[in-house]
Amino acid sequence: MTHTDSQTALNLSGPHRAAFDEPLALACGQTLEHYELVYETYGTLNEQRSNAVLVCHALGGNHHAAGFHEGDRKPGWWDKHIGPGKSIDTDRFFVISLNNLGGCHGSTGPNAINPATGKLWGPEFPMMTVPDWVHSQARLADHLGIERFAAVIGGSLGGMQVQTWAILYPDRIANAIVIASTPRLSAQNIAFNEVARQAIRSDPDFHEGWYYQHDTRPRHGLKLARMIGHITYLSEAAMGRKFGRDLRSALNFGYDVEFEIESYLRYQGNNFSNSFDANTYLLMTKALDYFDPARDHNGDLAATFAKSQCRFLIISFSSDWRFTPARSREIVEALVEADKRVSYVNIESPHGHDAFLLPDERYETVLKNFLSHAMAAPSDDTHHHNRGNDHAAS
Amino acid sequence: MTHTDSQTALNLSGPHRAAFDEPLALACGQTLEHYELVYETYGTLNEQRSNAVLVCHALGGNHHAAGFHEGDRKPGWWDKHIGPGKSIDTDRFFVISLNNLGGCHGSTGPNAINPATGKLWGPEFPMMTVPDWVHSQARLADHLGIERFAAVIGGSLGGMQVQTWAILYPDRIANAIVIASTPRLSAQNIAFNEVARQAIRSDPDFHEGWYYQHDTRPRHGLKLARMIGHITYLSEAAMGRKFGRDLRSALNFGYDVEFEIESYLRYQGNNFSNSFDANTYLLMTKALDYFDPARDHNGDLAATFAKSQCRFLIISFSSDWRFTPARSREIVEALVEADKRVSYVNIESPHGHDAFLLPDERYETVLKNFLSHAMAAPSDDTHHHNRGNDHAAS
Repeated sequence: MTHTDSQTALNLSGPHRAAFDEPLALACGQTLEHYELVYETYGTLNEQRSNAVLVCHALGGNHHAAGFHEGDRKPGWWDKHIGPGKSIDTDRFFVISLNNLGGCHGSTGPNAINPATGKLWGPEFPMMTVPDWVHSQARLADHLGIERFAAVIGGSLGGMQVQTWAILYPDRIANAIVIASTPRLSAQNIAFNEVARQAIRSDPDFHEGWYYQHDTRPRHGLKLARMIGHITYLSEAAMGRKFGRDLRSALNFGYDVEFEIESYLRYQGNNFSNSFDANTYLLMTKALDYFDPARDHNGDLAATFAKSQCRFLIISFSSDWRFTPARSREIVEALVEADKRVSYVNIESPHGHDAFLLPDERYETVLKNFLSHAMAAPSDDTHHHNRGNDHAAS
Repeated sequence: MTHTDSQTALNLSGPHRAAFDEPLALACGQTLEHYELVYETYGTLNEQRSNAVLVCHALGGNHHAAGFHEGDRKPGWWDKHIGPGKSIDTDRFFVISLNNLGGCHGSTGPNAINPATGKLWGPEFPMMTVPDWVHSQARLADHLGIERFAAVIGGSLGGMQVQTWAILYPDRIANAIVIASTPRLSAQNIAFNEVARQAIRSDPDFHEGWYYQHDTRPRHGLKLARMIGHITYLSEAAMGRKFGRDLRSALNFGYDVEFEIESYLRYQGNNFSNSFDANTYLLMTKALDYFDPARDHNGDLAATFAKSQCRFLIISFSSDWRFTPARSREIVEALVEADKRVSYVNIESPHGHDAFLLPDERYETVLKNFLSHAMAAPSDDTHHHNRGNDHAAS
């Protein structure tokens, strides 16, 4: 298949904009009276509306998950996995990918206009939580006429949204795929987020979040935040293999780039700081810190999942030290204790946390095989699921 | 023993200042024409001058390793290990602790006057390497009339100085104790240092290192650098046990401190940024990055130690993820390959890299037992070492 054919087969539609006027009460106590969500779709919704898959993005992500828009040099962030014949097969599934509330790629967020003031929301945009996002995603599903998702899929922060779908909307999700995630952040995870926030907030160009009005942005702070993030996304071994102690040039005994790893981090940090909104980065790190669904159940994660009905696939990566395989196993063990249908795969990978974004044969096979049995029946599909022909909706 | 008695027995002497007029050629190509080193001593030098122990400090350390000066609320940084009857027993050893060149606690460094200009050195202070430090320490030993150290001891960056002593001055060191160290930084280690440097250098109060002249200091940058450092000093488990996800107060859905770990990191970062010099921090991280003694031997660490004559004790800590036990074992394996006398102990500890500064029964016993056989004979002490009575100098 040529590139053009592949793009045609992908059937990328969007970005679209959905406006919501029903107020959304948020966990922080505030209410969004009106908001908009930007999303894209890939593939085709079937007549039974049973083949919809929701893809949830992670920190730094957005709605553009697959394919190319005109002029793009790079495809969407999960293009390796979403497309015709790929692990999330757009020949079978209708894939929806949105930019979450508080994002900076078109959905209502800090860099959007606050209708109450006529000015940008800026730092006055309310703090978001993962359940807030999931509620807004359910409204988007209503808007698209999707009663029940064949699957909700996400990695990292995206995997937290998947868990929350299974907890809050048990009858609207047939399959939950939680990748490289955790049931809650560790103190160390929070610590890295806190340093990133301090880097942004102590940048003099931050102006308490009103940098838009000063015609500037906290580039240095956001760059540092991303550099810190990148260290945690790569395994020590992957970083060592990729960069080692290689020198960019001779030692200069100064503070210009000497080692390749310095060059890489500065480059990644600079790129990100020119394209991402600092207020969005701040609130997304906070959503990560706040995520702790078991908190409402005295820390009992099994009880937290008590009402979930979907099948679960939990995937971890051996070299992920941000959210280690042990964190994924906490979810698995809670689901087993709660007597849920759960599959768990730990993928051997040298790529650390980043592995969830990269191609890997076993990873793709696991996703594809699990999804081969995924189709959204109107209710629990344990008993009348047709394994031989997934397209014949039950 | 009362606190006062203990202080008397410690026999803290100093801080002293030694001035050197013989030019010191540095690895970076520059020469220090004149420099001063500040140091303290504990215990008493014996008549044979065979009981001297050099303690080398790590990033953020200084010459004040043990005991109290008038008005001090806290003792020196290694007081848990240096003192009468302690693992580095000042009843037996004459312990010397200095502030390294480029430091900010009295030795010649960025915050000292450059005699050539009559102004502060500031960012014009030459870049230092671990071998530069060791050469300057050898001059200090000459100054004190110490031909051969019974032991040179250090943790982390201090352990790099110990390795370098064994390599560059094989006949001046009887015992080398390398704690929580590494034969060279990994790409990830360099990456953390680079983020710390970027944090300092991008602080508008840094003024290209001339902040002294602007009557300010890059507090935010230095605070961030220290916060990043602290994350790498503690194990994930220790951080989890110490702080967990404990809330300081109720969730406020804002950017004030919410979790205990945030409070801890901000406090540590603030304290450090008020007491440490940013230019010193920068050059010490660079000295860490540059350390790679095997570079001059085509990466062959065993060949690098070929001329070493001392006994070695290598100590690592099980939960240290900054310089993991595997990094210590690289040193051990090279020493075994080079047919050197080496003992290796991996201490089970939950405290991460910080463990080298903390009391621990096994750690103390290992240090003490190894040192019980340490006394600086004038040459190789393998054969005529008196195990029964260490005080009887051979």
